[in-house]
Formats: sequence, C-alpha cells, structure tokens
Amino acid sequence: MGPIFELAIDLPPRGSRERLRALHRQLRAAILEGRLQAGMRLPATRELAALLGVSRNTVVAAYDRLLSEGYIAVRQGAGSYVAEVPRGLGRSDKSRMTDTRLGPFWRHPPPLPMAALQASYRFDFRVGLPDQSAFPFPVWRRLSARALRTLSRAPSAYAHPQGQVSLREAIAAHISFVRAISARADDIVITAGAQQAFELLARILVTPGQTTVAVEDPGYPPMRTVFAAAGASLVAVPVDAEGLIVDRLPPSTRVICVTPSHQFPLGHAMSLSRRAALLAFARTHEAIVIEDDYDGEFRYAGQARDALQTLDGAGSVFYVGSFSKSLFPALRLGFVVTPTWARSALVAAKQLSDWHGPILAQDTLAAFIAEGHLARHIRKMRKVYEERRISLIEAIERHCQDLLEPIPGDAGLHLSAMARGGLQATDWAAKAGEAGIGLLALDRFGVARPQPNGLAFGFGLIQSDRIEAAIGQLAGLMR
Amino acid sequence: MGPIFELAIDLPPRGSRERLRALHRQLRAAILEGRLQAGMRLPATRELAALLGVSRNTVVAAYDRLLSEGYIAVRQGAGSYVAEVPRGLGRSDKSRMTDTRLGPFWRHPPPLPMAALQASYRFDFRVGLPDQSAFPFPVWRRLSARALRTLSRAPSAYAHPQGQVSLREAIAAHISFVRAISARADDIVITAGAQQAFELLARILVTPGQTTVAVEDPGYPPMRTVFAAAGASLVAVPVDAEGLIVDRLPPSTRVICVTPSHQFPLGHAMSLSRRAALLAFARTHEAIVIEDDYDGEFRYAGQARDALQTLDGAGSVFYVGSFSKSLFPALRLGFVVTPTWARSALVAAKQLSDWHGPILAQDTLAAFIAEGHLARHIRKMRKVYEERRISLIEAIERHCQDLLEPIPGDAGLHLSAMARGGLQATDWAAKAGEAGIGLLALDRFGVARPQPNGLAFGFGLIQSDRIEAAIGQLAGLMR
Repeated sequence: MGPIFELAIDLPPRGSRERLRALHRQLRAAILEGRLQAGMRLPATRELAALLGVSRNTVVAAYDRLLSEGYIAVRQGAGSYVAEVPRGLGRSDKSRMTDTRLGPFWRHPPPLPMAALQASYRFDFRVGLPDQSAFPFPVWRRLSARALRTLSRAPSAYAHPQGQVSLREAIAAHISFVRAISARADDIVITAGAQQAFELLARILVTPGQTTVAVEDPGYPPMRTVFAAAGASLVAVPVDAEGLIVDRLPPSTRVICVTPSHQFPLGHAMSLSRRAALLAFARTHEAIVIEDDYDGEFRYAGQARDALQTLDGAGSVFYVGSFSKSLFPALRLGFVVTPTWARSALVAAKQLSDWHGPILAQDTLAAFIAEGHLARHIRKMRKVYEERRISLIEAIERHCQDLLEPIPGDAGLHLSAMARGGLQATDWAAKAGEAGIGLLALDRFGVARPQPNGLAFGFGLIQSDRIEAAIGQLAGLMR
Repeated sequence: MGPIFELAIDLPPRGSRERLRALHRQLRAAILEGRLQAGMRLPATRELAALLGVSRNTVVAAYDRLLSEGYIAVRQGAGSYVAEVPRGLGRSDKSRMTDTRLGPFWRHPPPLPMAALQASYRFDFRVGLPDQSAFPFPVWRRLSARALRTLSRAPSAYAHPQGQVSLREAIAAHISFVRAISARADDIVITAGAQQAFELLARILVTPGQTTVAVEDPGYPPMRTVFAAAGASLVAVPVDAEGLIVDRLPPSTRVICVTPSHQFPLGHAMSLSRRAALLAFARTHEAIVIEDDYDGEFRYAGQARDALQTLDGAGSVFYVGSFSKSLFPALRLGFVVTPTWARSALVAAKQLSDWHGPILAQDTLAAFIAEGHLARHIRKMRKVYEERRISLIEAIERHCQDLLEPIPGDAGLHLSAMARGGLQATDWAAKAGEAGIGLLALDRFGVARPQPNGLAFGFGLIQSDRIEAAIGQLAGLMR
C-alpha cells in the first residue's frame, strides 16, 4: 500500500467518469515512469477505493483498463501485479504510445515521406526535385538585399494575409503569359508552397465526416493525407491515358483534385474532352475542382492545353501553382488562384494558419518575376530538362526496350515507364536503391489495387551525361 | 420559357436531392449573374418539370428555396418572377454571399484584424509590434548571404518538417539561458510564428465538437479563433491580478491557453501558487497547457518566475515562443517545445501544413542566435523598452493621474491601464484614433461581460521622447 500512497494520487472532486480517467492515467504514468515497478503488488480494489474516497467500481474499472492494456497482470488468487512494461514504452520513449490527449487522426500520425529527405544516391532519379545548380543565386542575393533594405526602413508591421501586392501582381502577369490564365492580383492568395494551398483548401471546403473528396489513383500522396486529416471521405478515382476517368466520380463528390497538365505520377496530359466532362460534372453537382499545376511550366512539345481554370466559367476551379519546381523547394512559396466566392474564407484561413508568408522572400520573388528572371530561368531550364528527357527515353530504348515502355507525355520533371515482360517494378526499384540508383515504383503512389507496374524517373537531379550509365546499370540489375 | 431553355440547365441523371441542389444552384447563379433578369416570369413548375424530365416536386422545392432566399417573388395569380437582387449581390461581388460549398465555419469567416495592418498614426501605441529600427540588419544581410551560398552549393531538397537542426539547437541553448527551460533540440518544432504553433496544436489536440478549450478572458483573440475554427468548445475563463483563475476551469477542460509571463492584454505575471494550481489541474484532469511566452524576453524587474514548462514534470505543457517580438514579425518564425508524446503528431501536422519552414530564414536565424546576436539585441532592446515604459508611467502620472491607473507588471512590450473617474475607455480610444493617437481599449480583447475598462499602450513603435507629448494630448481629449 505504501508505494501507491506515496504516489499522491489526485482525483477530481466530482464525476465518476472524470475520476476513472484520472485514476487510470495516473496509475499508468506511474508504471511507465517506473514509480510503480514490475512485480509490485497493487492494493486490493476495496482498499484503494477506501483510501482515495471513490467507489469501488471506479477502481475496478481502472484496473480493468490497465489489465487490458497490459500494464498490470492478475495472478490467480493473489491479486493484481504491475506487469513488465515492454521495452521502449517507458519514460525515455513515450512517443510510441497512443496518447488519448491527441485527436483520433493524430494518434497514429501519417509517416513522414522520408524518401524525399534522404539524399545521396550515385544516380538520383527521385521525383519532384528540380535542378537548382543553374539557378541565378547572385541575382537572388542582390534582390534579397534590396528587399531587406526596404524592410529595414519601415516600422515593424504584420502584413496582409493574402500576400504582398507586388508579388500577386507579378504572378498574375506571369501566369497570364505562360499558362493563359486570366487572374487579377486580387484573385491570388500567396501560400507556403502548394502544400499549404491544399491544406487551406481542405480546411475551408471540407466539413468533417460529410464531404466526399475525389483524388486521382495513382496520385500525389500528400494531397490525399491532407484531405484525410481534414476529415474528408476520400474516393480514389482511376486515371487512364486521358486523365481522371470522370464517369467514375460518385455523384456525391464535392471536391475533385487533379493534375491535368502532367498527371502525377503517370505523366499523361488530360484530354480536352475529359476536361470538358470534368467541368460539366462540377457544374451539375456543385463540385469544386482543385487544379494542381505542379510542373506544367516545363513543356516540351505542342501547344499547352487550356488550364481548367481558363476553361471554367462557373467559378468552380481553384488553380494551385508552386515555385518549388521552377525555382527551388527551400523557398516554400506557392499560390492559389481563387474564385471570388471563396476568397475571404481562404484569406481568413491563411491568417489563422500563420498570419502571412515571410516578407523578405515574397518581396524578393516579386522583383525576381517582375524583372524577367523567372521567365528567363524557366526558358533555360526547359532546354536542360528536355535534353535530359530525350537522353532518358533514348537510354531506355537502348538498354531496356524489352523491360520498360515509357508513358507518353509532353511536360514536367519526370517520366514514368511501365514494366514489361513480367518484371515486378517494386522489386526492381528496391534492387536499384541497393545499387545506389534512387527511383520509385509507381505503386507507391496508388490507393486501390491493381496498381500500374512501372517506375518513375525524375530528372531534376541527374545530369544528362549520367543518364546513359544509370539506365545501363538499371537494366543490368534485371538480367 | 425561352430564357430558361437557353440556360442549358444540366441535372444529374439520378437522385432527387442531387437534382434539387443542382437545379436550385443553377437558377440562383443565373439570377445573380443577370442571365435571368429581374421581373422575368419563370415557367410554371409543371412546365419546367416536363422540360427537364424531373418530378414536379423537385421544381416546387427549388422555387421554394429561391423564394425563401429572396431571389424570386410570387405575384398573386400570376406565377413566379425573378426578384430584384439586392445591390452588391450580383456577379461583381459574389463574395458576400453565403456559399454552401464552404464548410460551415468558413461561410462567415472571422474578420481580419485590420487594425494591426493599418499604420500611420502620429502617435502609435498599437500593441504587439516591436521596434525594428535598431535591428542589426547589416548582420542579418551578411548571415543571409552566407546561408544562400550554402544553399546554392547543395542539390535541391525538401527538408525535415521539424525544422533545421542548427536552428533547433540554437533555440534550445537560448531558451535554457534566458528562460531556464530545459529542452533538447529534439523537443523543438519550428513554426511560422506563434500563430502557426497555435494552429498546429489546435489541429492535433482538438476533436471537433468534443474538446473543451479554456482561454483567458480578456485574452488574445487570434488564439480563440484558431481553436474555434478547429471545432473546439471554447470556455472564456476570467483572469485576476494573479493570472488565470484556475478554480473557474470546468472539469471537462482538456486544453488551457495562458500567457503566464505577461498576461495578454492586462500585463500581470501569473503568481507561483496559481502556476502550481494550474499544473495540478492539468495532472488531475489529463489536461494540456499551452504556455504562450510572446514577449517574456523583455523583463524589467526582479527574477523571472519559472516557466510552466520548467515547473511541469508530467509532460502536459507546450511552450510556444516567437521571434516576432524579439526580432521582427515579417520574419514569421516561432517554435514549440513539445512533450515527447506529442512530437510525431506535431511534426506530421507541420508537414501536412506546409512541408517545412523556409530554409534561408531558418539558417540565417540559426547563425544569428549561435553567434550571440539575438542575446545582444534583446539586451539592447530591453534597455530601450524599459526607458519607454518608465516614460509612459511617468507621463500617465503627470497628465492622467485622475484618469488612468497603470496595471502592475514587470515585462513585455505594452502596458495596460484602467480608466478612472467614470471614463469610458472605448470612447476615449475612438477619440484618440481620430486625433492620430493609435491605441486600443481593453474590451477589444474580451469575451464575456463585464470587460475591464481601460487602455493598452504598446511602446514598440513610439520613441521615448514622443511619449510625453502623446499622453498630454490624450489627457486633453477627455477634459
């Protein structure tokens, strides 16, 4: 009885549920922290109830919970004992416990996409990362110093959550030129990368437990997770060579997330008839389309198809752009072109999230775009990436014609290819990783089975003259 | 019938509710956009039902909704007509409409705190803004250029959502020194200012419709809004000269938000006995405390009381710090010291929100702290602010002894004072604003009535030698 007494258990004066919660938690904490040690006999329920001034039922219920959780054990005829707590569950590593103080979604948080964080492959084909070695950093430094001088002369202030006007104006002009999107500065909200754009949209568009959101399958996993975290019911809708199969959208769908310029990860461009069908669906069902144009600036052939935002006349499209691919991801800047009806909500959500984006980065980027550096850098990188894309296709033809079939497409920073001849792309990617070749199998991006059996080759991080050797080695792994 | 026919109304094939929604929405849009003009007669319900191939009930229900919303009117014996749509509701300004495509909270988004955005007062006493005129911007530029050089030599990458290790290490050392908080770099998560810290905590700790969150009354409005947006039930708990009145916390409270160093906006420091009572409450009720230490670095007298995070031994406190007051708000960097059990959830929430904070700003700040510039700047500014605080108290004594009584406190960037002699602080603040003196009445920060009748004087933006004149004029307004 001594040790329990010394624990100074402290229960609320009223409420048997409150008292049960508190007693259970305090006993559990004492076991986890070693204050009650394994093998120690717990007082009988009647004794402890008397000592704490609670009903015996409360103590019995607390013991039952601890028993079912494995913190205590019962020995026939000898009462309850503190169990051996599994290693790794004690004070030094409580993080692996399920803590009921977290909201249900967060008790088993989604794993971090560590593949994107771990670098250093001999041949690096990871997707979603641009080449920043050719970025004009000296220009950026000069513009950044200028923005800092301006800031240093002004009194401190919080800025408008929608973003700096100069940046919104520069973006409006830029996307009108490169993507034929007609937007005023007022229609643009600056975000911390495309990820925050998805997050803010999920926040304002999803009513937890009620809103059905359709995502592409295969598709971009963080997009799915952000909507799941917001409480949406997710529907994974298959894609084919024309893009999302609109006929497969359930009529209850309220939000549809698509990558029409360059389907992620397969690489198709959405056909014009599919675009029309999608917008008709949105109009008919009062649904909303989120158009993620993550790398559409890099286009190698033909005329760009009109953006959904351009084709839509009904205010049902949010267009999301990012500077993570055209400049560099460390910058963390992106934007949404919003229909008017959602603007105040989106700006309020941004304000609640982080007040506003960092001013120096916004002002520097505004000048970078306005002075033509962004357009120049995109033109330069388009040639660089096109050369890599051609090298990649040629190397695949040369070394892997019987093993891989590239998926047609005309834009973006990666190329996907289907496995042939009974090869399992997942095994192949695993072997490649061991051999120092970083790439991912397409089934990593899928939701429902069966998933496309293929590989995604990013070419942002690999120089053109290294591609031939890389693909040669990759082929060798499967022969 | 013609005009309706030309609208090309497009209804889903199945589902009478779906069809009703679509029909209602398409008619409403046509009215708002002027395609159906005021005074135009709508087809009889039977006719339209036949034309569209839906049941008459569907059309009747759609007309009923439009009627109740004021979009159509009924003339006795003559059917339904398009009503005059109120000015400002048409195409040019749809944003004022309630749009059902938004989640319920976002249909009437919280207003932006525009007072913080609008500047240019002759005498500026707005709260929450530091003096950045003495900030060592040349040092910042040098460190920033160095961070950019480092970035330019690395391949592009997404970084860890928890924040740069160098910055987390620098913060751990800094807060151990200035606030006696024992935290390892692993316990720290970098956020986009304190606002994002609140937002991420609300996300992981609140289960919509279930979690009770206590906030100080009066208190910091954005803190309340962020928890309301997350679906929490808010309880406004009064504060007195010792801080939050712990006895007034409902037992169901799961999260408690406090400003113990310098109560916002009143300015008291929370007493030690109240701190102990708060932590005991948290232990007993499995509640969580969010300790917002927004300007506690600026302390003018006596020994700092231990932070709740330091006093707590049970892993129930999240400590939130910000660089918006010690450096400048345009930076948008802050941090959370998290208990171990919540770390993975918090990092996952950060990753879903925006992947990670901007790298250049994080690396620059890490070097700024590690090289001692932050500590030096805080020492310098503490003297500057202390002088202003003394000038303010002296000026109030000289000019307003019968009108204002300063609230004791020993820290922070603002001083609050209660109105005396039957004065209404709200009227006074309004008059002051008209006379070019920017300040806020305390009732702006309150929830329940009655609210403290007083004024909050920020001294981040006003030079010491201007304070005397400002307070003199302020007194004159009420005599």
